[in-house]
Amino acid sequence: MFKKVLVANRGEIAVQIIRALHDMNIEAVAVYSSADKESLFVHLADEAICIGGAQPSDSYLNMAQIMSAATLTGCEAIHPGYGFLSENAEFAEMCESCHIQFIGPSHQLISLMGDKANAREAMKSAGVPVIPGSEGDVTSVDQAERIAEKIGFPVLLKSAAGGGGKGIREVDRPEELRDSFEQCQREAKASFGDDSMYVEKLIRDAKHVEMQVIADNFGHVVYLPERDCSLQRNHQKVIEESPCILISPEERQELGEIVAKATLKLGYTNTGTYEFLMDHDHHFYFMEMNTRLQVEHTITEEVTGIELVKGQLAVAANEVLPFVQADATVKGHALECRLNAEDPENNFAPQPGKITHLFFPDGSLGVRIDAGVTNGSFISPFYDSMIAKLIVHLNDRNAVIAKMKRVLSELEITGVITNQAFLYELVTSDRFKQGTYSTSFIENDVLAGRRGLNAAKSV
Amino acid sequence: MFKKVLVANRGEIAVQIIRALHDMNIEAVAVYSSADKESLFVHLADEAICIGGAQPSDSYLNMAQIMSAATLTGCEAIHPGYGFLSENAEFAEMCESCHIQFIGPSHQLISLMGDKANAREAMKSAGVPVIPGSEGDVTSVDQAERIAEKIGFPVLLKSAAGGGGKGIREVDRPEELRDSFEQCQREAKASFGDDSMYVEKLIRDAKHVEMQVIADNFGHVVYLPERDCSLQRNHQKVIEESPCILISPEERQELGEIVAKATLKLGYTNTGTYEFLMDHDHHFYFMEMNTRLQVEHTITEEVTGIELVKGQLAVAANEVLPFVQADATVKGHALECRLNAEDPENNFAPQPGKITHLFFPDGSLGVRIDAGVTNGSFISPFYDSMIAKLIVHLNDRNAVIAKMKRVLSELEITGVITNQAFLYELVTSDRFKQGTYSTSFIENDVLAGRRGLNAAKSV
Repeated sequence: MFKKVLVANRGEIAVQIIRALHDMNIEAVAVYSSADKESLFVHLADEAICIGGAQPSDSYLNMAQIMSAATLTGCEAIHPGYGFLSENAEFAEMCESCHIQFIGPSHQLISLMGDKANAREAMKSAGVPVIPGSEGDVTSVDQAERIAEKIGFPVLLKSAAGGGGKGIREVDRPEELRDSFEQCQREAKASFGDDSMYVEKLIRDAKHVEMQVIADNFGHVVYLPERDCSLQRNHQKVIEESPCILISPEERQELGEIVAKATLKLGYTNTGTYEFLMDHDHHFYFMEMNTRLQVEHTITEEVTGIELVKGQLAVAANEVLPFVQADATVKGHALECRLNAEDPENNFAPQPGKITHLFFPDGSLGVRIDAGVTNGSFISPFYDSMIAKLIVHLNDRNAVIAKMKRVLSELEITGVITNQAFLYELVTSDRFKQGTYSTSFIENDVLAGRRGLNAAKSV
Repeated sequence: MFKKVLVANRGEIAVQIIRALHDMNIEAVAVYSSADKESLFVHLADEAICIGGAQPSDSYLNMAQIMSAATLTGCEAIHPGYGFLSENAEFAEMCESCHIQFIGPSHQLISLMGDKANAREAMKSAGVPVIPGSEGDVTSVDQAERIAEKIGFPVLLKSAAGGGGKGIREVDRPEELRDSFEQCQREAKASFGDDSMYVEKLIRDAKHVEMQVIADNFGHVVYLPERDCSLQRNHQKVIEESPCILISPEERQELGEIVAKATLKLGYTNTGTYEFLMDHDHHFYFMEMNTRLQVEHTITEEVTGIELVKGQLAVAANEVLPFVQADATVKGHALECRLNAEDPENNFAPQPGKITHLFFPDGSLGVRIDAGVTNGSFISPFYDSMIAKLIVHLNDRNAVIAKMKRVLSELEITGVITNQAFLYELVTSDRFKQGTYSTSFIENDVLAGRRGLNAAKSV
């Protein structure tokens, strides 16, 4: 096993990784931007090196600086966390050429999955069901029109290089296609420097169901119980749960065997997540693969008892996976709410600022709060606005919801506006309790209803 | 179910109970002494009533004041927690006559189990194996000598009314008996106002193994996986784990069925714990029954996923137990360390004072920290010195120990001296890792070794 590992990330995920390293008696080196000098993850690391200014391009995306820090401190491996360089094939390749182990899949597979159209083709040939749509990149609006005609409206236009909810647009009718395509292309060009698009059938009122796998270099692969991440706003996950209450053990096993087989066929190692849409008839359609640890991996840890970062480290160190498929059973139910510094009353605008008072209600059975902040921390405008992940895991889903409701009531945070009350509204809603909500729930049921109410008030 | 419940306790256990009440949508009323005005449990309660001065006799032991508070606030039940009035039969009887539900067993059973000699007899006739010893109270040293002669030395002298490690003495040889008996009797008289004694065979190098049960009013009883509480200093538990690694599933079931049957035979309801000594041949000897929730119930919650306070509330509200024996299986391994404000370098003298800085390393899989304090809290000289319970629960005991080691390293507390380093020493010791330690481990291996070292240094 490694003796020293560099953590190329910040916030709660850097804290998590440092703790996993320490649990395994591995030294942890943090790299940080000047804005994060006083952060918890910097405090917890054995060594910490400032790699640049607050702008991500100067620090957490600054590959040369991070590689220097790793070399200087004698690190044998780099854990990229999520976001930042975690899905950057160039960085993974740079690690390889510097003989530093990148803790993730090969740069070839990161690259393949990073291109949505190629990923889709690869999945199709690996036996994973995909959404009907374009084959290869779509570069002209005429081409898009022909494909949309064939698969039928509504369709979704997506930037091939996109992610994080950008460069994506729904089109209901043929006459809307041209304008939407052009807007989307411009957005993609501006955000990702690449205006390649693809077109796929839009599955409305679907569940976003995803399944994480982890595979070693010796042909072992384990699939983990699915997560229901349908509670999204603007294609950003807000609340996740595991398992999905609509999925039977047989369906879980069937889907699991499909993704495990594909993982082996692709030669994919370390961890990754297959994201699917599930329609009303429980058909699964592959959307994309995340070639990294995800924010919501915590609920999978809770529900299985498996420590995923430890698994990643074992694989990266060329060891055999420390657990087998039979360990990855569903033990109870887990729910995660993302507490963000954002203002739900102002279109969820990020709310940077200093946390002047903080009380996390952890300390009872099944409550886990993963945070990168403490009292007095500053929520920086340069990074994402997540403050903490509130996780509850108990034997029974109803008890989980009741406890999450209490956790959200008991939590105290002042100094920044947060989505605490919005999360409470979601968790206590009837449709959430039923568990049948789809990806359009927040937009169509919660926010549209609220806008209607405001419109009615203003009359 | 109750609508409003009074919590007749303080500190972490009051916090736990209030949270369980809130999880069940029950209002929680706290009672507090003037010393606890700023405490977390007071802050979390829906209503809080000051019932007197810092001295326990003025507040947490002041039955009349607590009953008035319950009546004034319209509480339907009282949860006594542990310590204070939790095993006071008179208080339970007072609740009954005031038509307020005492959350615990009947006052008759509290009374029976409170007298060690009578408890022993009751257990013997209910089929529970007991330690060979005196039948009924021993009032004279001559009587003690005859019994000791019969069962053989070494013997243990214990105050019949005792508890908490007071009024207890080991006697190795016949010539030591007279002096020890008289000292012990004087101590018992002073501490408990009752000098009745009993004599039992001393089981050396034994494991302290205990098994908790919970029973409702409808003939259902569930036994929970055993806890190994052998890591004691001065008969006070320091570290507990569940399950006991020396006990096989068959032994667990056998012991469980014995205590479950006895519970039904005694007509015992709500929760209670049978404490046993286990010798090298895995013979179990009943020591005493605790007729309340114990400090270490948390590791049982972790290892089973069962919320015990909720179970207590269901029973007290005359509902059927919300879980069955098949739910109470062992899921992984749990370990608890008691973080105390005490000085291991000064004979573990309590260290009251203000916590000037506090960082709890919760927020990773399997870590739970139950505390009644926050940053700036005052550890009062009037109450026990426990600051927090550090609990780790994972699939595998070795991983649990590694993580507890990390938690103990990462924990930061200043302002008061604690046993943090002592806990670290215990958790990382080889004999602890082997799991074969007995109740004499801390005294004979750790402290005696340390005293020897100090003696050698001073030469």
